[in-house]
Amino acid sequence: MVKIAVLGYGTVGSGVVEVIERNKEEINKRATEEIEVKYILDLRDFPGDPYEDRVVHDFNLIVNDPEIKIICETMGGVNPAYEFTRTALRKGISVCTSNKELVAAHGPELIRIAKENICNYLFEASVGGGIPIIRPLNYSLTAEKIDNIMGILNGTTNYILTKMERENASFDDVLKEAQAKGYAERNPEADIEGYDACRKIAILSSLMAEKTMKYENVYTEGISKISNIDFKYAAKMGRTIKLLGISREEDGKYFAMVAPFLIPKTHPMAIVNGVFNAIFVHGNMLDDSMYYGRGAGKLPTASAVVSDVIDCARHIGKLIKCFWDEEEVAMKDVNKAEFVYFVRCDSSLHEEALGIFEQVSVVDAGVEGEIGFTTGPMSEEEFNRKAEKLGIISRIRLMD
Amino acid sequence: MVKIAVLGYGTVGSGVVEVIERNKEEINKRATEEIEVKYILDLRDFPGDPYEDRVVHDFNLIVNDPEIKIICETMGGVNPAYEFTRTALRKGISVCTSNKELVAAHGPELIRIAKENICNYLFEASVGGGIPIIRPLNYSLTAEKIDNIMGILNGTTNYILTKMERENASFDDVLKEAQAKGYAERNPEADIEGYDACRKIAILSSLMAEKTMKYENVYTEGISKISNIDFKYAAKMGRTIKLLGISREEDGKYFAMVAPFLIPKTHPMAIVNGVFNAIFVHGNMLDDSMYYGRGAGKLPTASAVVSDVIDCARHIGKLIKCFWDEEEVAMKDVNKAEFVYFVRCDSSLHEEALGIFEQVSVVDAGVEGEIGFTTGPMSEEEFNRKAEKLGIISRIRLMD
Repeated sequence: MVKIAVLGYGTVGSGVVEVIERNKEEINKRATEEIEVKYILDLRDFPGDPYEDRVVHDFNLIVNDPEIKIICETMGGVNPAYEFTRTALRKGISVCTSNKELVAAHGPELIRIAKENICNYLFEASVGGGIPIIRPLNYSLTAEKIDNIMGILNGTTNYILTKMERENASFDDVLKEAQAKGYAERNPEADIEGYDACRKIAILSSLMAEKTMKYENVYTEGISKISNIDFKYAAKMGRTIKLLGISREEDGKYFAMVAPFLIPKTHPMAIVNGVFNAIFVHGNMLDDSMYYGRGAGKLPTASAVVSDVIDCARHIGKLIKCFWDEEEVAMKDVNKAEFVYFVRCDSSLHEEALGIFEQVSVVDAGVEGEIGFTTGPMSEEEFNRKAEKLGIISRIRLMD
Repeated sequence: MVKIAVLGYGTVGSGVVEVIERNKEEINKRATEEIEVKYILDLRDFPGDPYEDRVVHDFNLIVNDPEIKIICETMGGVNPAYEFTRTALRKGISVCTSNKELVAAHGPELIRIAKENICNYLFEASVGGGIPIIRPLNYSLTAEKIDNIMGILNGTTNYILTKMERENASFDDVLKEAQAKGYAERNPEADIEGYDACRKIAILSSLMAEKTMKYENVYTEGISKISNIDFKYAAKMGRTIKLLGISREEDGKYFAMVAPFLIPKTHPMAIVNGVFNAIFVHGNMLDDSMYYGRGAGKLPTASAVVSDVIDCARHIGKLIKCFWDEEEVAMKDVNKAEFVYFVRCDSSLHEEALGIFEQVSVVDAGVEGEIGFTTGPMSEEEFNRKAEKLGIISRIRLMD
């Protein structure tokens, strides 16, 4: 019997308890020991809940109980999760988390503390809830030099973009509907401005590099400026628009970015619609691989946390390998990165655009008063200089 | 230092040696020990090959060398691989294999022998070369009750179908071209008749059931009867044709089949083209997930074998969990399985078809002298009875 505690009885935390209850036969067999939820930490009480009697309000009760071998940290946010996690790991209690903010901010330190105390800090649920990606990177692609990771990493923004495309709807209308349905938060900034995807690509990049990529160093753009007019042009180009986190290694340096991209409809990522997410991984031997599934949601995310619990239960007193050092990666200057750009500008600037951007390919989507065109490949800084000179309505990068 | 031997210096075996050489820094770090290829077993000599001096012709030399801890079995075929693998495992030497025939025929027995001798029998490369799928099933989806697996499991047939669709080419022409390019074997039966996919879906089904599904019990149909006329109808229906291995659990019994299916162009599997493969897994908590990558090829397959070598090196003297018992699963009768069918018949039979099949939906692809239609859902036995009565040209099952 392995006794565990769940920190935070919100969506994911209650999902963890539900998954352990509903799949108990399979889980106990695979963990090779029975898993029992002994404590649930929350500020609230849950009168009438079948687990009412496990709810406690004092973290010290949990961390000082020698029976507790594994903690699920499903609180979210850096504080107090950071302190709780450090305290638990220092006592040799393994921690399984869904908390991407904490992993992106302090992951390598927490992994080191776990190692020093012969326990484990696992975070499968922190990226792509229902997509097994952390464990495949750590356990499966071990014979690879991974040089490129790219993903649709946020369910809310992918739901909004899919709806805008399918229903020719405006960003604001779809956002309101998503909020009403609970797919977007009342304060949607973390999702729509790309901050959530930024943390996830920083975590994936760090596992690729086996060093630390700070999320603060990842250039991030959200989708709030994407309009349904952009989707008209996209359709004309045989493309769709996806918010991507991209990251690649070039000569030992790393380049990462979160931004909306125009991708071909024939790209495997183009069929990733609604709340589904996908992560593309390129290795020098296996070439391209892709991992697809639900990016979030109570039970998929909880299932990932519980898979970590099973892994910890199988490895009590043993270390699970994870290569993520505290040393920071060298970053490439984003201004030097090259892209092809799709640009919209006032139709009166047609001649000027041809002069400034030279290799222009016009996209006619029948939008009155403006023209759309794609540029040749050029660096961000060159593009920005030219775009400022011309005076543009908007631009979206292309990805093939 | 961990010394290993490679059995068979063909495509995959030489790939294993190449991957270990090219990614040696990453591999040794992740294995936490240096991996060295001490022997290569082959009937041939390889004068001038950089590993010429490691080539031996006598398996006993390898299996009696106490320095050898891991063997890569990349010979293919059941014999003599079966005897070699048993002998090695009985001596406590772990075996990593790409040999799907052997895994499908004797996997659970070999896993049991490995357990009895505290070593491991790993087979990541046996299904979907460049797709990590065995380890995700064993290590990642541990909190799930998996009830449905479906895959494009053979690169040769997927290449042929993709070419037929894109170039409106006949099966025979594309097969000849694939043979000339080395994508299809001179004797292509194992691929085009679905025997290869059949072994792979049997392996995946066994891991889903944690018991044994015998590949001989999987109803199997290949693609040799698919014509470019079928793709004309498919296009009219907004569908494409893929050779799928499907498997699902229903009330404790298992149903599995390999056959060509008409799938919607919006299905994530529809964009799996050319030599790429993909495997769809449905779990009761995480819902749908998909794993995509190269289905075969020297380096992707070798990379999967080497990832197993690394796993074995990390677990010398320890067992890696694998739940696959020798007990056979109960199978559902394929005749009772229900599908919707697309049927082609002589145009003179139009009225009769309506009478026999009732809920018919005609597909007009402008093909002279015949009609195409889809039926309502019905069992295989009902369909076969009606199809015989009518006298049809061909039928393909639909999948949504």
